[in-house]
Formats: sequence, structure tokens, C-alpha cells
Amino acid sequence: MAHLGEEEQREVLNRLARIEGQVRGLGRMVEEDKYCVDILTQISAITKALDAVGLKILDGHVHGCVRDAMVGGGKEAEAKTAELMEAVERFARMR
Amino acid sequence: MAHLGEEEQREVLNRLARIEGQVRGLGRMVEEDKYCVDILTQISAITKALDAVGLKILDGHVHGCVRDAMVGGGKEAEAKTAELMEAVERFARMR
Amino acid sequence: MAHLGEEEQREVLNRLARIEGQVRGLGRMVEEDKYCVDILTQISAITKALDAVGLKILDGHVHGCVRDAMVGGGKEAEAKTAELMEAVERFARMR
Amino acid sequence: MAHLGEEEQREVLNRLARIEGQVRGLGRMVEEDKYCVDILTQISAITKALDAVGLKILDGHVHGCVRDAMVGGGKEAEAKTAELMEAVERFARMR
Repeated sequence: MAHLGEEEQREVLNRLARIEGQVRGLGRMVEEDKYCVDILTQISAITKALDAVGLKILDGHVHGCVRDAMVGGGKEAEAKTAELMEAVERFARMR
Repeated sequence: MAHLGEEEQREVLNRLARIEGQVRGLGRMVEEDKYCVDILTQISAITKALDAVGLKILDGHVHGCVRDAMVGGGKEAEAKTAELMEAVERFARMR
Repeated sequence: MAHLGEEEQREVLNRLARIEGQVRGLGRMVEEDKYCVDILTQISAITKALDAVGLKILDGHVHGCVRDAMVGGGKEAEAKTAELMEAVERFARMR
Repeated sequence: MAHLGEEEQREVLNRLARIEGQVRGLGRMVEEDKYCVDILTQISAITKALDAVGLKILDGHVHGCVRDAMVGGGKEAEAKTAELMEAVERFARMR
């Protein structure tokens, strides 16, 4: 349903595993009472990494929707374009 | 250095543990090939939770800087206000 | 090229005229030394209005790209999907 | 109330005049049916310029609050720090 190929799915899962590690690292920084600006920089890095995952997911979805629109044609194409835009808006409002 | 009290630190660590769980849940959604918009919604929730942690960290820092500015006065106050603004800008550019 | 219909174009131009007025109003707030948080709220309103214009432009572009992809098929469809994603990424990185 | 000095106020007003011109330029781009990605890039530039104005306003406010906190001390300092954080949160949620 998310229209990801096997390799893309594996890549996304690898990224998420790395993000999990970054969140754990953030916990250590807080425990060790690191400098505020450095903690915020680390949070920013995690947010950007999540954002890149979102873009990857969106990219797979958009390609899938365009493919479906081409196969279906007419009303199906209109529905698929609307579905595509819904995901784009969701992504845009992610931040 | 991050100017967090003991209780605030514990609260931040609890939130981070929850965020770690959310990232793991996101991985399961990708593995189970969930719908794109639902995955983006989950990413958005994690981003917002990280943002709230950042604001908490920033809040502790700002209070610490104002306290230091008041105790130090004069040049120290100017330095502490600049430090405070640096953190605010870092937070603002987090997204 | 921006794939806007006549009516959509007129609506976008109306919105931009309103945004111009909001920027002028912001100038007056600064001249009259209004409260900081109120000025920031006004800036936020203008940013959101610009964002809505961007989404409108993007929507027209996405529909145009999908239409072109369907008419062209094959390689053209791939090119149009890439063009579509470029605009989506540009929009997403707008903030 | 926004705690801006005369020169800072003039600079902010100059920036806003430039932003007004940018919005007018955006209108021309839409009228001339320019390429979607170029229009989005222009919107992004305006958003960033507004953001810089917001940061300038916030900076003046933060300095004013710290100054007031130092002069007032005690309860006044607590109130001024809360006021400062309110503006920071408002700024952070601007996007």
C-alpha cells in the first residue's frame, strides 16, 4: 500500500534503526547534562532524518499513484491524483 | 549545563523512551506496508514529540541564562542574553 | 507552465493582493511599536497565507504533470513524475 | 513595547518594504505563468525574509525582557522570563 519496493523498504528500515540509535544517543546527552545548543542540534539532526524517511515514503507513493492513474485512466486518474495530493499535503504539514 | 532540574530531566528521559518506542512502531508500519498517509502521520507525531522535548530543554536553558544574567549583571548579562538568543535561534531553525 | 486555469490564476492573484496588504499592516504594527507576540502572530498569518498560495500552485502543477504523464506514457510519464516530485520537494522545503 | 531601538525599527521597516516588493513580483510571476518550481522558490524566499524579520523582533523582545528582569528582580524576573518564553514559543510555532 505504501508502494515501496523491497530494496527501498530495506533502506527505510535501516534508516529507522539508525534514528532509533540517535534517539538513544539523545537520552545519553540529557543524562550527561550536555550543553543545550548541542542537544537541540542533535534533535534537529533526528528531525531531518525523519523528514528524509517521509520524503522517501512519499516518493514511492507518488510514483505508485501516477502508475495507477495511467493504468486506470479517466475517473480513476482523477481519484489517484487527489490521493497523491492528500499525501503531499500531509507531508507538507508534517513540520 | 542544560540547566534541567532532576525532575525535568527524568520527564525528558521518559519522553525520549516513548519516542524510541514510536520509532520502533514506525518500523513495524513500514514492514507491514501500511498506507502512506498513515505512516506520514506517525512521522509527524514523532517530530512533534521531539519538538516538545526541544522546547522543554530550551525553557530550562532560558531560565538558567536569565538567572545567570541577574546574578552576574553588566557584561555577564549581555553574554548570557547572547547565549540565550543563540539557543532560541538554534531551536527556531530546528525545523 | 504553472498549469493554472484562468479562475485559479485570478484567485491566486487576489490572495497575493491580500498578502501585500497584510505586509503593509505589519509595517504599521512595527511603526506603532505593537506588542512583540502580536507582531509575530501577524507574521505567522502571512506565512500561512503564502503557504496556501504555494499549495494551490503545487496542486495545479501536480494535476498538469499527471495529465501529461497519461497522454505521453512510458518515458514521458517517468519524466513527468520526476518533475512532479521536484516540485513537491521544493514545496516541502519551503519552510 | 516591541523593544526595538530607532535604528532597528527603521531596518525592520526597510525589510518589510522589500518584502512587499517581493510579493508584487510574485504576482507578476503568476500573471506571466512562470514555472511552478520558480514560483515556489520565490515564495520560499519571501517566507525566509519574513522569518528573519520575526527573529529580529524576537531578539529585541528578549533583550528587553532580560533587562526588565534584571531591574525588577524576584517575582518580576519570573514574570519577564515567562513573557520571553511565550514569545519564543510563538516564534517557534510561526512555521
